Amino acid sequence: MTATPQDTPDPALRDGEPGADVPGDRDAFHVFDTTLRDGAQREGINLTVADKLTIARHLDEFGVGFIEGGWPGANPRDTEFFQRARREIDFRHARLVAFGATRKAGVAADADPQVRALIDSGAPVVTLVAKAHDRHVELALRTTPEENLAMIRETVQYVRSRDRRVFVDCEHFFDGYAANPGYALEVVRTASDAGADVVVLCDTNGGMLPSRIHRVVAEVISATGARLGIHAQDDTGCAVANTLAAVEAGATHVQCTANGYGERVGNANLFPVVAALELKENRRVLPPGALAEMTRISHAIAEVVNLTPSTHQPYVGVSAFAHKAGLHASAIKVDPDLYQHIDPELVGNSMRMLVSDMAGRASVELKGRELGYDLTGQRELVGRIVDRVKERELAGYTYEAADASFELLLRDEVQGRTRRFFRLESWRTITDRRPDGEQENEAIVKLWVKGERVVASGEGNGPVNALDRALRAGLERTFPELARFQLVDYRVRILEGRHGTQSATRVLVTTGDGTAEWSTVGVGENVIAASWEALQDAYTHGLLRAGLQPTE
Amino acid sequence: MTATPQDTPDPALRDGEPGADVPGDRDAFHVFDTTLRDGAQREGINLTVADKLTIARHLDEFGVGFIEGGWPGANPRDTEFFQRARREIDFRHARLVAFGATRKAGVAADADPQVRALIDSGAPVVTLVAKAHDRHVELALRTTPEENLAMIRETVQYVRSRDRRVFVDCEHFFDGYAANPGYALEVVRTASDAGADVVVLCDTNGGMLPSRIHRVVAEVISATGARLGIHAQDDTGCAVANTLAAVEAGATHVQCTANGYGERVGNANLFPVVAALELKENRRVLPPGALAEMTRISHAIAEVVNLTPSTHQPYVGVSAFAHKAGLHASAIKVDPDLYQHIDPELVGNSMRMLVSDMAGRASVELKGRELGYDLTGQRELVGRIVDRVKERELAGYTYEAADASFELLLRDEVQGRTRRFFRLESWRTITDRRPDGEQENEAIVKLWVKGERVVASGEGNGPVNALDRALRAGLERTFPELARFQLVDYRVRILEGRHGTQSATRVLVTTGDGTAEWSTVGVGENVIAASWEALQDAYTHGLLRAGLQPTE
Repeated sequence: MTATPQDTPDPALRDGEPGADVPGDRDAFHVFDTTLRDGAQREGINLTVADKLTIARHLDEFGVGFIEGGWPGANPRDTEFFQRARREIDFRHARLVAFGATRKAGVAADADPQVRALIDSGAPVVTLVAKAHDRHVELALRTTPEENLAMIRETVQYVRSRDRRVFVDCEHFFDGYAANPGYALEVVRTASDAGADVVVLCDTNGGMLPSRIHRVVAEVISATGARLGIHAQDDTGCAVANTLAAVEAGATHVQCTANGYGERVGNANLFPVVAALELKENRRVLPPGALAEMTRISHAIAEVVNLTPSTHQPYVGVSAFAHKAGLHASAIKVDPDLYQHIDPELVGNSMRMLVSDMAGRASVELKGRELGYDLTGQRELVGRIVDRVKERELAGYTYEAADASFELLLRDEVQGRTRRFFRLESWRTITDRRPDGEQENEAIVKLWVKGERVVASGEGNGPVNALDRALRAGLERTFPELARFQLVDYRVRILEGRHGTQSATRVLVTTGDGTAEWSTVGVGENVIAASWEALQDAYTHGLLRAGLQPTE
Repeated sequence: MTATPQDTPDPALRDGEPGADVPGDRDAFHVFDTTLRDGAQREGINLTVADKLTIARHLDEFGVGFIEGGWPGANPRDTEFFQRARREIDFRHARLVAFGATRKAGVAADADPQVRALIDSGAPVVTLVAKAHDRHVELALRTTPEENLAMIRETVQYVRSRDRRVFVDCEHFFDGYAANPGYALEVVRTASDAGADVVVLCDTNGGMLPSRIHRVVAEVISATGARLGIHAQDDTGCAVANTLAAVEAGATHVQCTANGYGERVGNANLFPVVAALELKENRRVLPPGALAEMTRISHAIAEVVNLTPSTHQPYVGVSAFAHKAGLHASAIKVDPDLYQHIDPELVGNSMRMLVSDMAGRASVELKGRELGYDLTGQRELVGRIVDRVKERELAGYTYEAADASFELLLRDEVQGRTRRFFRLESWRTITDRRPDGEQENEAIVKLWVKGERVVASGEGNGPVNALDRALRAGLERTFPELARFQLVDYRVRILEGRHGTQSATRVLVTTGDGTAEWSTVGVGENVIAASWEALQDAYTHGLLRAGLQPTE
C-alpha cells in the first residue's frame, strides 16, 4: 500500500485504510464491482454520468471494496464521472478504480495518452487489461508475445511509480492457458513481479465450467504464487459458480456486476456471489448489516439503469421466496425454515404465499394473515374461499398475480355479501376505422352510484382506454380520490391458444395511487369484457384503500 | 424394462425401446424434463391442457428422454393431459412420466387412490416423491421414520408390479443428509432395493453450492451403489453448475425444465445443462441434430407459456452472441472463434454485431431463398428490405414469428408495389354489455373487391371475432376459397408494459387451410386495429397460396 496524499487528491479515496466497520483486514478479500464499466456493456444499458454517480453511491452503501467506474480518456462521460465522483461522493467503503489498457506497442508508458488519462482520473486504483492469449496478441494487438510482456511490465511499473495501486485483468486467460499455458503463466508472473497487487484471471468469452476454473486457478497459484482474482462471464450459466470455484481454489478477489449486467449473457452477479460467501461459506466480505440491504439495492440499481428488476433473480427477486404448492403450505406454517434455504430477511427479502388452484387451505390462511384477516380456526369459511378460488381459476382467473382481486374475493366471503361503490347497468364501446384511415374509439357507461343513475362517456386510443375514461368520468364527481389512480400496467392473455379468437381472454391490470400499486384480474369472452372486470376491481380496491365505505 | 402392452395401452409409449437415432444405449444417461410438472410451479405460469400438449411435442422433438407430465389424480387438468397425450402425441424420443407421492401412512399402496391414479394415467414411467429428511417426515407427513420407509418400499414395489418403471425423487435430500445422513442413506437404499431404477437426490430448497453437491453425490454412490439422479433448484444461482457437479460425481440422470422455469427462482435450466454436457463435456445426451434446434425450441416454449423469452439466457438468448462492435471488430472478422465460446450455430443461435440491428443482409437473403426468392447479388433490393424490416420492427412488428407477413413485405419490395385482393374503405365494431348482463358484438366492414363496393357485417363473441366474420362475409362470395381458412391461433402482446392501456398492441395470428398453417402480424394502438392488420395479411397470404392473382 503506497498511496500518498499528493497524488490522490481526495483523502477519502486513499487506499489502505481498513474500513472501521469491517472486522479484520478489509484487504484480505476484495469484492470488486464493475457494473459501471463491464456491466454497462449490456445490450440496452446506456448510462449518463448522473446514473453512474447514483449507482456508485448505492454500491458504496452496500459495502463493496472497489468500484470500477469506467475507462477515463476513452470516452468523455467516463472522464467526467471520475472528476465528479471525487468531488461529489464521500465514499464510506469503496475505493474508486479506473480501467484502462497497457501501453500501445512501441510507445513509452508515460508517453501514452490513454495511460496518462488513468493517472489524471485521480483514482487511487488502476485496473490494466492485458492480453494473456498469444493468438490475441498477434491478431488483436498485432505485436509480438515479447512486446506484450514488456507492455505489461512497463505500464504496471509506471502506474505504480505514480503511487497507484494496480490490478491486472488477464483477458481470455482460460482460453489462453488452454492454448499456450507457458505464455499465459508468463503474463501472470510479469504482472505480479512488476508490482500488480492482484492478477485477475478473466473468462472473457464465458465458456468455462466450475471444475475447470477450480483446476486452473489452483495450478496458477502453485506455479506463480501470485495473488489471484476471478472475472467470470455467464455464457454457460455458471458465472456465479465459476466465481465461487475460483475462491475455493484460492482466489481472493472477485469481480462482479450488480444484477449480473454485462455483455452478451452478462457477468457474475454480485448479489448471489456475496450472499454465498457470507451465508454459505461463512466469510465476512461485506460490512455488518450490508446483506440485509441487498434486495433494496438490487432493485434500486435496476431502476437507475431502467430495466425491470428480474422477478426470478436468486435472493432478491420478488419470486425468490414465493411459495405456490399447496403441498408445502401446511408444513410451512409449522416451520418455515424447512422450506427456505435461508431466512429471506437476511437479504432484505420476504416470504410470500401465492394463491393458486394448486394451493390448499393453509396457503389461503397464510395469505389472509398477510392481508390482515385472521382466518385461523375458521374451517368452513376457509373451505369456502378455497372452493371459490379453485372454481374461478378453472374459469381462467389467476390470483397469484392479482392480490387485490383476491382480497376482494376474501372480503366478500368473510362478510358474506358483495358490497361495491357502484352498480353497472350497461356499457357500450364503438371502434371505427374511418374511410380517411383515422380511428375513433368511444365508450358509454350507465351506472348507479349512491342511488343515482349516471351516464358517462369517454374517448380513447382503443376501446378499453375509452371504457376506462368513461368509467372514471362517471365516478369522479362522487369519488374525487379517483383522480390519483393511474393505470401502470396492463396485460392480456388469450387462454386457449388453439381456439382462435373464440378463446377466453384474461386481463391483468396494475393500478397505482402514487404510494402503492395493486393488481386485479378479469376474464371474459373478449378483451373488452375482461378489461371491464379488472378495471372494476381496480377502482373498488383503490377506494377501499382510501378508506371509503362501499354503499351498493 | 418390464412394460407389457396390456398395461400401457398405447404401444408407442412402451418403455425400453432404444430410440433408433440415438447412438448407444439411450438409457445410459437420462435427460429428464419436468417443465410440465415442476416448471409449471413458476409464478405467473398457468398451463391449459392444450398448452401442455404443445410443450410436450416441442420437448419430444428436442429429444429429451423423459417428459414428466404432471400429477394425474391430483388435479383434473393433469389427468386429462395424460389421456390426451397418449391419444394425440406420437412420441419419437420421450417416455411420458407420471408424478405422484408414495402411499399415505397406514394405507395399502393398492388402496391409495392417488397411487392408483398413477397407474390409470397409462404412463410407462412413474416418479414417486419421497421424504428423505427425518424432520419433514415428522412435520409434513406426521408419521414415523419407519413408516416412511415402508411407504417408499411398498409403493415402489406396487408400481413395479404393475409393469411401470419407477424413479424416486428424494425430497430435501441434501438438507436431510446434513441433518441425519444415516436416515437419508436408508431412504436411498430402500428405494433402490425395492426396484427404483433411479434415485433422484433433490435440492428442494435450492440452497446448495456445487462443491457440496459433488461431495454428497460421491458419498451416496459409494455408500449405496444406487443409480443416482439430480434435481436442482436455482436459489443460489447455481442450479446448472450443481447439476453438472452431480454428473461429474457420477449421477446419470438430470432433471431440468425448459428455460429454467420453476418455483421461486426456478429449476436447473435444461438448455445450458444439455449444451454443457454435449459441447463442453463431449457426452452425447440428445439425438444428433437436436442441439441446433435449441434456440427455436426455447423461444417456442416461452411463447406457449406466454413469457417473453429471456434476451440474456445462456446459449439461446438473442443477446447471447451479440458483440458490441468497435474494439474487436477487425479481429472478429479474422477469427470469430476467438471471441465466442462456441459457434452459435451449434445451438441454432447466431452472432450479432450490435451496430447493425437484428436483420442483416445475409439473413434476409437466406430467408428469401427459403421462401423461393433468389436475392443473391441484388444488393440494393436486399438493402431496401433490411431497412423496411428494421423500421417495422422498431414500430413493434416481429417477423421471426410471422413468416407470411414477412413474405408479403418481401413480395411488395421485389415487385416494387403493393397488390392485394381487396381495398378497405372503413370498418366499425360495437361491443355492448346490455342491462340484462348479456353481451353483443357487431362489426361492419366496407370494402372494394374487384371494382365493386361491398358492405358486410358480422357478429361474434368479441369485437375481433365479429370483425373477422364481417371480413369473411364480405369476401367469400368472390373468393370461395376462404371457406377453408381457419383461425388456429391468436396471440396478443402489449408492447410497452409500463404505459397502461395506451401502449402499442401486437397481434400474431396463425391461419390454416387444412394442409398448411401460416402466421401473420399486426400492430396498432389497440387490439382491434392490430388484429385487423394481421387478419388482412392472413387472408391475402392464403389467397396467394391458393394460386389467385391480386387485383387491387
